[in-house]
Amino acid sequence: MITLHLARYTISLAPLIALEEAGAAYDLRWVDFKAAEQRAPAYLAINPKGRVPSLQTVRGILTETPAILAFIAQSFPEARLAPLGDPFAFAQVQALNCYLASTVHVAHAHRARGSRWADDPAAIAELTRKAPEVVTQVFELIERDLPAEGWAVGGAYSIADAYLFTLAQWLEGDGADVAKLPKVLAHRERMRARPAVIRALEIEKG
Amino acid sequence: MITLHLARYTISLAPLIALEEAGAAYDLRWVDFKAAEQRAPAYLAINPKGRVPSLQTVRGILTETPAILAFIAQSFPEARLAPLGDPFAFAQVQALNCYLASTVHVAHAHRARGSRWADDPAAIAELTRKAPEVVTQVFELIERDLPAEGWAVGGAYSIADAYLFTLAQWLEGDGADVAKLPKVLAHRERMRARPAVIRALEIEKG
Repeated sequence: MITLHLARYTISLAPLIALEEAGAAYDLRWVDFKAAEQRAPAYLAINPKGRVPSLQTVRGILTETPAILAFIAQSFPEARLAPLGDPFAFAQVQALNCYLASTVHVAHAHRARGSRWADDPAAIAELTRKAPEVVTQVFELIERDLPAEGWAVGGAYSIADAYLFTLAQWLEGDGADVAKLPKVLAHRERMRARPAVIRALEIEKG
Repeated sequence: MITLHLARYTISLAPLIALEEAGAAYDLRWVDFKAAEQRAPAYLAINPKGRVPSLQTVRGILTETPAILAFIAQSFPEARLAPLGDPFAFAQVQALNCYLASTVHVAHAHRARGSRWADDPAAIAELTRKAPEVVTQVFELIERDLPAEGWAVGGAYSIADAYLFTLAQWLEGDGADVAKLPKVLAHRERMRARPAVIRALEIEKG
């Protein structure tokens, strides 16, 4: 059995969608960020980084969203959540996932988590001030290559769609200029119509 | 034929090491950061993000270091650069790679590339000031789990070793407290003894 450790309205929605898409049997363990449970000893024993998601398996615990998403795709091949037999096509999916993790999510994190990189309150405020501009900019690179119809990478639905959707949910909250991102918004709407996404959003709401 | 677009003393050393470990036939195209070639139209046509590495293949261009590294491992299975037949073990390798990309490399980038997230010179200076502390902290999480002997993940040499080594090369330049990282430094020494790493470092030096 798989257990997903997750928190509401965080990036852990992406693997939750992937598990729903895969029709996987899984348990959930909610980590309450308002109670700072992610930094409590019980959770740090699961994931010393104090972040979500963590995926508990019979073999051990996995962390990092792109790694967890690829693991779900490989563990449920019949769900066709990634082009598993084609290293180039798989790398294209992974390239978007890695950009989402290391550039897009990081741009978002500067809005409210600037204390990771600065102590001075004025500097933290400056990171918050610039975040809408940076989030818009890093999404414009996705907008540029996103198809007007269908899915993000290579024509077929994949784990990259679940990941992109999760970050795109935060655009307005981040103050991004969504007028510059029509294809990202249209992709978000297509995602919201998928049964697995509807189920995952219901689960997240609780 | 594969062409790696790379720049000296950047993260593109990691795929260069992987190509050398794989015994791959490949070409190199150097991108001169001092001449800002990464932002010139010729390179932006290769990679609109203006970053290295980019890997040009007969199928198209791949970006993002973890995606490129997994592609090299999957394209040269006989080199055994990742546990390809085992989704859990592969995910463990990918989890380290993703942490290196989205947390460790990002911590490093705040030392000299703060203008990605701030305009105010005082805020940029604050990011530079705190970078040594953050880099130390994010490496301490690796130090915690790194074996005292052998390789970073699961006992066998992998693409994660090439990636970790590349970032560990920058520790002193980032002002990190390396006294707290004895296993990371010992891993770096073991890497420096590998013939493929020696060759890659020679190529990088030019």
